[in-house]
Amino acid sequence: MESRLSSRADLIMDSCIMRLIAVAKQPGMISFATGLPDNSLFDTEGLRAAADQVLTGEDAKGSLQYGEAEGLPSLRDRIAKRCRREAGVNATKECVLLTNGSQECFDLLGKMFLDRGDPMVVENPGYLGALQAYSAYGPRMIGVDLSDSGPDMMQLETALKEDPKLFYSIPNHQNPSGMSYSESARQEISELLAGTRTVIVEDDAYGELGYRRRAGKAISSMTDNSVMTGSFSKIISPGMRIGWMVVPDWLLPKATQFLEAFCLQAGSFTQRVMDRFLADNDLDTYLGPIRAEYLRKKELFSDLMEDMLPESFSWNDPDGGMFIWLRTPEGTDAGRLVDSALEKKVVLMPGKPFHVRGGDNTVRLNFATASDEDMKEGMRRLSRAASDAF
Amino acid sequence: MESRLSSRADLIMDSCIMRLIAVAKQPGMISFATGLPDNSLFDTEGLRAAADQVLTGEDAKGSLQYGEAEGLPSLRDRIAKRCRREAGVNATKECVLLTNGSQECFDLLGKMFLDRGDPMVVENPGYLGALQAYSAYGPRMIGVDLSDSGPDMMQLETALKEDPKLFYSIPNHQNPSGMSYSESARQEISELLAGTRTVIVEDDAYGELGYRRRAGKAISSMTDNSVMTGSFSKIISPGMRIGWMVVPDWLLPKATQFLEAFCLQAGSFTQRVMDRFLADNDLDTYLGPIRAEYLRKKELFSDLMEDMLPESFSWNDPDGGMFIWLRTPEGTDAGRLVDSALEKKVVLMPGKPFHVRGGDNTVRLNFATASDEDMKEGMRRLSRAASDAF
Repeated sequence: MESRLSSRADLIMDSCIMRLIAVAKQPGMISFATGLPDNSLFDTEGLRAAADQVLTGEDAKGSLQYGEAEGLPSLRDRIAKRCRREAGVNATKECVLLTNGSQECFDLLGKMFLDRGDPMVVENPGYLGALQAYSAYGPRMIGVDLSDSGPDMMQLETALKEDPKLFYSIPNHQNPSGMSYSESARQEISELLAGTRTVIVEDDAYGELGYRRRAGKAISSMTDNSVMTGSFSKIISPGMRIGWMVVPDWLLPKATQFLEAFCLQAGSFTQRVMDRFLADNDLDTYLGPIRAEYLRKKELFSDLMEDMLPESFSWNDPDGGMFIWLRTPEGTDAGRLVDSALEKKVVLMPGKPFHVRGGDNTVRLNFATASDEDMKEGMRRLSRAASDAF
Repeated sequence: MESRLSSRADLIMDSCIMRLIAVAKQPGMISFATGLPDNSLFDTEGLRAAADQVLTGEDAKGSLQYGEAEGLPSLRDRIAKRCRREAGVNATKECVLLTNGSQECFDLLGKMFLDRGDPMVVENPGYLGALQAYSAYGPRMIGVDLSDSGPDMMQLETALKEDPKLFYSIPNHQNPSGMSYSESARQEISELLAGTRTVIVEDDAYGELGYRRRAGKAISSMTDNSVMTGSFSKIISPGMRIGWMVVPDWLLPKATQFLEAFCLQAGSFTQRVMDRFLADNDLDTYLGPIRAEYLRKKELFSDLMEDMLPESFSWNDPDGGMFIWLRTPEGTDAGRLVDSALEKKVVLMPGKPFHVRGGDNTVRLNFATASDEDMKEGMRRLSRAASDAF
């Protein structure tokens, strides 16, 4: 019966993300693998109070009823304001659409833009979850290598000559590499995009997690052909599944139609709870301790790496987000390290699946999820795994 | 820039559902148009207590974190048990996948099964929201007319000869018509499907809303090539967005992969709240007053129709669900009634958009949403509209 499936069933990329989450839950496992935020930072009491207010408030019934396809107007307005102030994007509430996490944006955008064989530009490495969503629509992915300051501009310029439909990018504290685009890279990209018909999809999932400041203004503030996506998953709660996209005027009617066909609407209840939570909590005040804690964990994790990993390994020093990008020596297969670590009950995410080419000697490390104790024990195990594998 | 969109942008059907919800919210409007359940039946206190328990309980943090792509195991188990007991379907928790409302199932199934031009069988009339979801994938829809006891079997037999990928059906208290398949129709359909490669998608959104009993065993209990979909939207809360599908073993790996690519997972928080609510409330006890209230409203609404609408109009007498199917005289255009009613501030849903052919003289009436008072006033207005239009 598998033969009855659509051609998309063959096109869709595999992703090990959710499988890794399952493996990481096994007893005794320590995970540096997933993209989960630190549980202990969730404000359960604040969200409980918000849920309580919503369900005892005047419009409690409304929070349980169907809502607008576009999402709750007051929450869309909050997001638009934040995008204007923090990212410099000219957003109004009318152009903000709420989704079930930003993952849904990538599927929607793939569905709206991509016919089989259409070129699209992706970062190499790029975020696997998004690439998987796009892959079902069969685009021809053109990879542009990332350096520490942004994409390779020569490669990007060449890629844009192929008239790609989309350019999917994470300019802030990228998943998987932890790197951010420099200010000049952002400017240069907006200039390269000018005059093309390529829409940049600017994924801002980690934009609020700069430890000391935001990595830079959004590229979407410098170009019109842009869709910016965001999420509360990394800063408040992924389990509430609230993401959004800021779409240009010309795309709004179709995007709303596709969103409605997709899921009718993304969920009145959690949108109201989030809206109430944000009304009661100043977001900057709330984010202060979270940013500080991720910085502390990053430094602890880096120190442990420095102390325990072989000198032949190298890695970066991110200024935000949740990931460090590890390289085993050029020409080696980091998959050996991943396998050896798993035997010692440390779950790693290989870097290879994030790539359209290369990346054999890379591993994505998440330092955000594990407790300090697990981090130390996990690094001891990883050190032994490194000795075994290399 | 619209020219940059995929071919799906031209294929996708328009749906007026969410626009009607917006119009219906205008001051002074009375709506018989939408598929919204009766707000006043929502158990806000029960759901508040459930949310409170989840967010003060031992695993409060877990309810805010990412969960399994397939959904919360304990909730999947509850749904599987209910499907076995009520619908006779051989479901285990492993084959239940949770989604953001059952609308998402239709998009997922379209994406998994349909290449452009693939034949699929739909009811005529059929549920517009689902048809819209499928339409983006460009199937060739073969309509099978509905009578009061099920689909036209001659038409279905002929349609199945074209080897359709899917047969989308709502055997219980159908949206839009309110009709249910007879027991013998279900049996006959399972026999027609045997030996074909067609997968029946059995949408059970209204299955729990039989006023006196369930309309019949699921067709999915009589055939293997079936996906059954369901939802808490019509019985507990649409704003929580929890739907599900029961998929056969051979489809499970691909369905899970597509679900993950779609949205990672449908939402830990509302799944836990729903699971808690169902642990604290016996579903049959909970449903008793809801079924009774919808029956009472249906009878009141039918009586008002009898008293106030022209004798040339006809309609059915549903034994469950939320809809009455109105026919203006053969050969007339019910759109005139819809327009005339809107002038008098009654919102109606024309029947035509639910059809792949015909249906010009039909209107879908929802008697579930309006209060008694609004129902009476709305029917007075509708009566005047009928006089003006016919």
